[in-house]
Amino acid sequence: MANAKQVSGKLEWRINVPDGTSNVLVPESDQLVNKAWLWLKGLLCGLVLKIWRFLYKAWNLGVAEPKKVIHGVKVGLSLLLVSFFYYMRPLYDGVGGNAMWAVMTVVVVFESTVGATLCKSINRATGTFLAGSLALGVQWIANKSGETFEPIIIGISVFLLASAATFSRFIPSVKTRFDYGAMIFILTFSLVTVSGYRVDKLLELAYQRLSTVAIGTSLCIFITMVFCPIWAGSGLHDLILCNLEKLADSLDGCVGECFKDDKTKLRNEEGPSKRMQGYKCVLNSKATEEVMANFARWEPAHGRFNFRHPWKQYLKIGASMRNCAYCIEALNSCINSEIQAPDYLKKHLSDVCMLLSTNSSEVLKELVIIMKTLTKSSKIELLIGEMNSAVQKLQDSLNSVPNSFIGPTVSTLQAPNEANRETIPKTAITSLLDVFPMASLVYLLIQIAARIEGIADAVDQLAGLAEFKLAMDENCKQKKPTNKSTSDNQDHETMKTSPRV
Amino acid sequence: MANAKQVSGKLEWRINVPDGTSNVLVPESDQLVNKAWLWLKGLLCGLVLKIWRFLYKAWNLGVAEPKKVIHGVKVGLSLLLVSFFYYMRPLYDGVGGNAMWAVMTVVVVFESTVGATLCKSINRATGTFLAGSLALGVQWIANKSGETFEPIIIGISVFLLASAATFSRFIPSVKTRFDYGAMIFILTFSLVTVSGYRVDKLLELAYQRLSTVAIGTSLCIFITMVFCPIWAGSGLHDLILCNLEKLADSLDGCVGECFKDDKTKLRNEEGPSKRMQGYKCVLNSKATEEVMANFARWEPAHGRFNFRHPWKQYLKIGASMRNCAYCIEALNSCINSEIQAPDYLKKHLSDVCMLLSTNSSEVLKELVIIMKTLTKSSKIELLIGEMNSAVQKLQDSLNSVPNSFIGPTVSTLQAPNEANRETIPKTAITSLLDVFPMASLVYLLIQIAARIEGIADAVDQLAGLAEFKLAMDENCKQKKPTNKSTSDNQDHETMKTSPRV
Repeated sequence: MANAKQVSGKLEWRINVPDGTSNVLVPESDQLVNKAWLWLKGLLCGLVLKIWRFLYKAWNLGVAEPKKVIHGVKVGLSLLLVSFFYYMRPLYDGVGGNAMWAVMTVVVVFESTVGATLCKSINRATGTFLAGSLALGVQWIANKSGETFEPIIIGISVFLLASAATFSRFIPSVKTRFDYGAMIFILTFSLVTVSGYRVDKLLELAYQRLSTVAIGTSLCIFITMVFCPIWAGSGLHDLILCNLEKLADSLDGCVGECFKDDKTKLRNEEGPSKRMQGYKCVLNSKATEEVMANFARWEPAHGRFNFRHPWKQYLKIGASMRNCAYCIEALNSCINSEIQAPDYLKKHLSDVCMLLSTNSSEVLKELVIIMKTLTKSSKIELLIGEMNSAVQKLQDSLNSVPNSFIGPTVSTLQAPNEANRETIPKTAITSLLDVFPMASLVYLLIQIAARIEGIADAVDQLAGLAEFKLAMDENCKQKKPTNKSTSDNQDHETMKTSPRV
Repeated sequence: MANAKQVSGKLEWRINVPDGTSNVLVPESDQLVNKAWLWLKGLLCGLVLKIWRFLYKAWNLGVAEPKKVIHGVKVGLSLLLVSFFYYMRPLYDGVGGNAMWAVMTVVVVFESTVGATLCKSINRATGTFLAGSLALGVQWIANKSGETFEPIIIGISVFLLASAATFSRFIPSVKTRFDYGAMIFILTFSLVTVSGYRVDKLLELAYQRLSTVAIGTSLCIFITMVFCPIWAGSGLHDLILCNLEKLADSLDGCVGECFKDDKTKLRNEEGPSKRMQGYKCVLNSKATEEVMANFARWEPAHGRFNFRHPWKQYLKIGASMRNCAYCIEALNSCINSEIQAPDYLKKHLSDVCMLLSTNSSEVLKELVIIMKTLTKSSKIELLIGEMNSAVQKLQDSLNSVPNSFIGPTVSTLQAPNEANRETIPKTAITSLLDVFPMASLVYLLIQIAARIEGIADAVDQLAGLAEFKLAMDENCKQKKPTNKSTSDNQDHETMKTSPRV
């Protein structure tokens, strides 16, 4: 029903809807204005919300990684300093209007890590110098060959050199180290040859260009190395350390999750599941590692790292860690699978599996200590030996499974401990289907142990290349009598050569 | 013995060594010259060899990927064209000495794919425009506030904006799309504010700068899109296609390798082993995929792809493929393990395993066809259904293993085929240790099947988002009667909901 009402001197049409509410009818022109207003309000609100979200994200990033804020401040500072070249007259007269190149150099060259800044600076300086000299030569030849040939010679040289240098940027060895240099080479060569100045003027230009680039790069290098330096090398080292810790946590978490019973289920569910996902970081950090290792090579000695620290070896450690993480990924899906292993089998294997995973993650944790302290560990071989003997124990207990479960008469003869003898159903293993999630878990655990040995080998190679010293840990020496260690080492050696699944 | 001989008027000391040879003794000064000569020769040879190797590598790269050579030629051509601005006087008068900026724009902006070039061009133009306008405003305010405040206002504004813009480059949403724009923003803002010109001159400068940037970018965009364009989108599409094929090959290769007998061992060993390693490409292509998807978003409609083709979905397909590749990696190490499964077990499971792997790789190959033709396939659900029923068969045959092998009386009752009845030792399965490499292989195969379904889902989502049409394949329609297809679909549905390991 539509009623007309006279409210406060204004005619209003109202529709009463059967559910008790009523809608006011407004004239069409008002509606248009209203709509426009609503649209505008929505747009503004949306924009404000978007900006707000962006700022919120930025704020969170800044709080989480203050290094990034510091980098921003450093760039601002460098630009402020370089702009003095314009305001202080004596300096201005020295480098002339080309001071612009100093500003440009700072903006383009200043990167977040010292290694990247050095790489770009050296590339820029070398590229500018090489291209400048070559361009002067070409310009001189072009000048001598008369007005008709000049543009042809210059055109052909620009075309050929630019094509060749651009193509060279695809060659892997150039790409990783001199990509930026090749670009600057093309830029400088084109600018100098094409600019059409006479050679005497060009020499002056080249001198100015080189000196401003030198001012810009040295300012960048100074500021990046003096104020809160961020080293690519240290970053790479920390990344590898952190990933090793995450691998150990994931392994512990996964195996613990698989064999946990109702007692342990009372613990907080959120914590372990997040810890278990750590291996994903290892899987995804390949690109970051490569970039960092590439820049770390340019860095001078810093902190505990020498100039020629074997950064490439870190890539090998990273690769072996990813190798291990693939298996943990498969293990993780094993645990999430819907059919679970029968309880008696779980109980039988629980202790040995937990032992193996504990030993494996102890090896990883010892590797973390080696990397953290940059010292050789006297315990690592012992721990690897223990891990390998845990593998052997696991294989032994697999060997005893069907004997103890399938035929109870045999089991009472062979099973050594009391626990196995009781409460075993006669036809416990009805099919392989019951066994095989457990079997693949065991198989993956053994694979993981083998791959952790691969990580240990890679770390050992690093220790050799970087000449780590032996840790002077007295506690550790007391714990490890020489006889036992020798036998353990032998054990480890035999494990290595014995055929393993 | 040392003898003195007079050969051709020159005194020569010679030592006769007991083994019959003799060494000529030369004076020390000659030795030094000789050494220096040898050293120089070695150095030169080494250098020549190094250059030769570099050129050889470059040649091979050029032959393998002629697109990269074409890109080089395109850059050379663009620079040649832009250098006309210097030689043709009327044009030169138009844009003045700032034509340098056009050269610089071409060198910096021209990237190997259309998407990357567009991304950089738009970033450069937008960054220059925004920063230029802002700088004009700041300069105007600074001019009005008198000589003492001018440098302070300019200094503070440069510091604050440069810091903020540099920090913003770390924010993921800015980093993936506007990283270059932010850099150009800082560059232009610093150059314009710091240059110290009066505002009227600045307007002219800004106009010239913008017009040269426009000339440079439009030239780049024209050349990159007209001459042999290299599209990031097509590249991403081809990469995903190629990786899908490699996954199928690896899976076939791995399972084939595991169950091959002496007959098939006669085949060439090199071929399959290289094919088997294809999954490694899948594991390593994450970074490339991300870069390509990022640039593909900037590209206009090209080939069979529309402007807003769902490139992000390709990343999801890539992720699900890597997910599958992790399992193939574990499977591969399974095959290389030293203890092999006992022959009777291998024989028992060989057929079903081969069936599952064939069905799985057929699904992958059908996905390749879907991606290649950009059409929905009518067969894919059928194939997934077949794959899932192969999983069921494998589980069934696992169920029948202990019954048929452990107790021969039971086996003759239950095993349906003749082959199982004969030549079975009574205590065939002595321990789980014998079974578990095979069990984990089976487990991984089933996992792989589940993950291939994940890939199929991702491709299906892509088909929905990009509105693929149904393939009008008559052969396929004839092969698939409607009744069977419905039952197969149902089968497929039940498989999906039924608990699977």
